[in-house]
Amino acid sequence: MTLADAIAAQTPLVQRLLDGVATIGADPPGITRDAYGLGENQAQALIAEAGAALGLTASTDAGANLTLRWAAPRPEVAPVLIGSHLDSIVQGGNFDGAAGVIAGIGAIAALKAAGIQPRRDIEVLALRCEEAVWFGLGLIGSRCMLARLPQGALDLPHARTGRTLAQSIADCGGDPARLREATPLRDPRAIGAYLEIHIEQAPQLIEAGAPLAICLANPGNVRHPFIRITGEDAHTGLPHRFRRDAALAGADLSLALERLWLDEEAQGRPMAVTIGRFHTPVARHSLTAVSGEFELSLDLRAYNANHLAALEARLQAITAEVAAHRNVTIALGERSAAAPGPMDPALIEGLSTAARRCGVNAPRLNSPGSHDANNFAAAGVPTGMLLVRNQNGSHNPHEAMDTPDLMAAIHVLAEWLAT
Amino acid sequence: MTLADAIAAQTPLVQRLLDGVATIGADPPGITRDAYGLGENQAQALIAEAGAALGLTASTDAGANLTLRWAAPRPEVAPVLIGSHLDSIVQGGNFDGAAGVIAGIGAIAALKAAGIQPRRDIEVLALRCEEAVWFGLGLIGSRCMLARLPQGALDLPHARTGRTLAQSIADCGGDPARLREATPLRDPRAIGAYLEIHIEQAPQLIEAGAPLAICLANPGNVRHPFIRITGEDAHTGLPHRFRRDAALAGADLSLALERLWLDEEAQGRPMAVTIGRFHTPVARHSLTAVSGEFELSLDLRAYNANHLAALEARLQAITAEVAAHRNVTIALGERSAAAPGPMDPALIEGLSTAARRCGVNAPRLNSPGSHDANNFAAAGVPTGMLLVRNQNGSHNPHEAMDTPDLMAAIHVLAEWLAT
Repeated sequence: MTLADAIAAQTPLVQRLLDGVATIGADPPGITRDAYGLGENQAQALIAEAGAALGLTASTDAGANLTLRWAAPRPEVAPVLIGSHLDSIVQGGNFDGAAGVIAGIGAIAALKAAGIQPRRDIEVLALRCEEAVWFGLGLIGSRCMLARLPQGALDLPHARTGRTLAQSIADCGGDPARLREATPLRDPRAIGAYLEIHIEQAPQLIEAGAPLAICLANPGNVRHPFIRITGEDAHTGLPHRFRRDAALAGADLSLALERLWLDEEAQGRPMAVTIGRFHTPVARHSLTAVSGEFELSLDLRAYNANHLAALEARLQAITAEVAAHRNVTIALGERSAAAPGPMDPALIEGLSTAARRCGVNAPRLNSPGSHDANNFAAAGVPTGMLLVRNQNGSHNPHEAMDTPDLMAAIHVLAEWLAT
Repeated sequence: MTLADAIAAQTPLVQRLLDGVATIGADPPGITRDAYGLGENQAQALIAEAGAALGLTASTDAGANLTLRWAAPRPEVAPVLIGSHLDSIVQGGNFDGAAGVIAGIGAIAALKAAGIQPRRDIEVLALRCEEAVWFGLGLIGSRCMLARLPQGALDLPHARTGRTLAQSIADCGGDPARLREATPLRDPRAIGAYLEIHIEQAPQLIEAGAPLAICLANPGNVRHPFIRITGEDAHTGLPHRFRRDAALAGADLSLALERLWLDEEAQGRPMAVTIGRFHTPVARHSLTAVSGEFELSLDLRAYNANHLAALEARLQAITAEVAAHRNVTIALGERSAAAPGPMDPALIEGLSTAARRCGVNAPRLNSPGSHDANNFAAAGVPTGMLLVRNQNGSHNPHEAMDTPDLMAAIHVLAEWLAT
């Protein structure tokens, strides 16, 4: 059987698994698979069952991540890991995460059906708790595996159960004591490559008319969750020259950051600015008062560390300009940052070659979102990603990935694994 | 005794009354005199007592407004009413309202001390519930007197007691059944003039170095308390060209309205724009989401009806431009309006002449705020106002009017009354 035929033959398996995780997560109008909870556990069990049917060896690590291993008879190089996650946000969609794990199963099934012997171990990883909603921290499974949990993370409470991350991990068969040692569960130098398939979280592939893309980089970010602007409360009759309007300062700041974004992109430097919280203080809302206080959040993302550092310098300058212009103070407050995750150049080339051989149109694209792949890239593992066309963004019930597009991605992945 | 000497002699009385209403309203760090409640009632009693000491005749009307009348022996013209209010907002300042009532008492006391006989009745009005915080509707005392209560107003609940306005009025000795007849308690054609002294609610007189101003007009307004912008929620990774960011549309709208304001003022057309509520929906705040919803309130004020109508047309045009540019919908929603209150030209001249005679520097100024005077002007009563210098705006504990500035206003008022 040709590999193309073997791929096509896996469509029913892939569809059955996609439908299976949807049934597990059903929470109309969306999908909820709670991390370190029933939803994620049942989805892991479904995937483990599919792996067992293919003869894969299951194991779980100290973070309660599931690994399904297809051992090569005579491994020539270090293993390839194909990873993604099974949890979702509350009332999100079915494909963000799960599609990538199912793709790994589908690729191995196709390679086996085509009679291809792997020249290295191939492992499918179902990583735990990628979504930040459960513990206010995302990418937890890959952080556990690579000793990248931040200080105090094991004490964070689960949004639904209130149990700590350590307790939640133990509840699912993991070993928090091992995690507290803060050394990698797997030596990153002994991982040949990490590959992740994920739906695109923007409609760029819909726009481009391509079923999938080869990812160039995942963004890093700088975040200020609680920027506070302080001016002066005033009566609606106060003439303009006396006002110190914090809300209009917020408007200035947001539009200045948007101009920065558009200018940078016009000069070929991709980035994004998102201001999710943007508000006068609710407790003091008044129709007839100038607001002396305003709050906003800022997520600034870019694809390389130097660019991100330059953007932070611009943020400081813009903030100072707005504060001076409006006679207000602007406190950026708490800051967090995540390093960008550039993909491995050889993997980008290899996946492009595989796509060409499969006859699949696969443009190169920056990923709109961050993924577990960021942690592997940051740990020095050669990392690659395929992004699958998806109509309506992610984190909502309307995620819309067509199975043929996922099958095209599985084809490219299997082609790459086979060579 | 000259009138100037008689005025100076009233300083202790005026100070005693200012201190008296401050004691009544003491609610550290501010002043609270609840309308149709203990605070306003006790302040009325203090003023009534001062009126009795001057031999004035007290009466209350169906709206529970207090009138203190100095009857002319042989009235030549219709009576002059000197009005203001005794209620405050919650933890506001001492002078917004009360200073004007006390000024009326002080002026009559000075005229009596100077041995001047009035050629018409002079009445001091302590109007009820000027502040909008108590029933979500302001200027209630003057509305009652002139049959200008909007439909349903008598059924509004008191913010503190929950009793309806009708019940609250009855509790204070008023007659809600009479108010339901919706005819004026006093025929406006039989009122010779209405005069109001009020602290300035902006620091324009501080800036000008003048103790008081002669008011040209009180602003009217158009209000949209609940403007709603609808775009589309999205993931922080969504490229700019796909975004329909409601918060940035709000920023555009607010700054476009501010530009309109500055352009109009540059062309000699005074106005103001206040956006008190300006916010993403609190229940859905997220650091990593583009907000598809945004809300704001708008108070648009100006000093003549044609200008206000032109501004509303501009508001419609600006809203349509922003909606088109951001690919969002903007619903202006609920609308309320109040007509501007122009002061009587003859009164403006008369008060200017009186100020000149008193040697008081009294520039002409638009009032930053609306007042009970608006209702008298709207009812066709010749209306005038004096604005008294005040450092820190109103509706806050830091209102700062100096008694000598109030005495200067009382001097001008008494001079005008004497001629």
